[in-house]
Amino acid sequence: MSKKSRQKRLPGEAYAPRIHARLWLIDAAGEHYLGVGKVRLMEAIDELGTISHAARKLGMSYKRAWSLIQEVNQLEDEIYVTREVGGAGGGHAKVTEAGHAAIARYRELEDDLRDFLAERARKRGGQA
Amino acid sequence: MSKKSRQKRLPGEAYAPRIHARLWLIDAAGEHYLGVGKVRLMEAIDELGTISHAARKLGMSYKRAWSLIQEVNQLEDEIYVTREVGGAGGGHAKVTEAGHAAIARYRELEDDLRDFLAERARKRGGQA
Repeated sequence: MSKKSRQKRLPGEAYAPRIHARLWLIDAAGEHYLGVGKVRLMEAIDELGTISHAARKLGMSYKRAWSLIQEVNQLEDEIYVTREVGGAGGGHAKVTEAGHAAIARYRELEDDLRDFLAERARKRGGQA
Repeated sequence: MSKKSRQKRLPGEAYAPRIHARLWLIDAAGEHYLGVGKVRLMEAIDELGTISHAARKLGMSYKRAWSLIQEVNQLEDEIYVTREVGGAGGGHAKVTEAGHAAIARYRELEDDLRDFLAERARKRGGQA
């Protein structure tokens, strides 16, 4: 996505007609959070196998992606993304079982929110 | 709020234990939105009667507040905030009936989201 189209984009995700939202899962200590950016990055790493390919897909720098991965790994006592340094292609990265569970938790919350907003709009005759 | 504490703040609003969210109402044309920043500004104008006092309360510049008000007044065919220029104290600002309705719509959506998340957490035994 170009810089221009990103600037013109409406905020959040379109979960219902005329309602956008953004969700964050907060860690137990109330200090860190898992938002859609980190979830998308983990999904891209899961798909592509390296942080550099995932970063490129999402249009972010490797430095930014690496910084997000470090945050993700501080969320709970468990590691969400592991990384093998070196080797051909600069090393592979992998989403752990705990990381997959966190992604699923986030996406499930989104699905539930979408259902709730659809039901709410139905009750209100399509009104926000 | 100081710049430092704002930077350390978690994103969104704490609508449920361990879940933060942010909501935006999108206009009919899908070009503009009403978020919590504009809602708070309208509420502060309604309370204090001038844009400058409202801006000061929210820690934003007059220029920023005025730019947000111009956006708010482009959301629908109706004006949400009117302003009398000049006079003692730099002129008064007023939230119109349509503006009050927009605030109510936003705050009602928030309340419904809070109820939904509480009910969802109850069903899941307190889990996000």
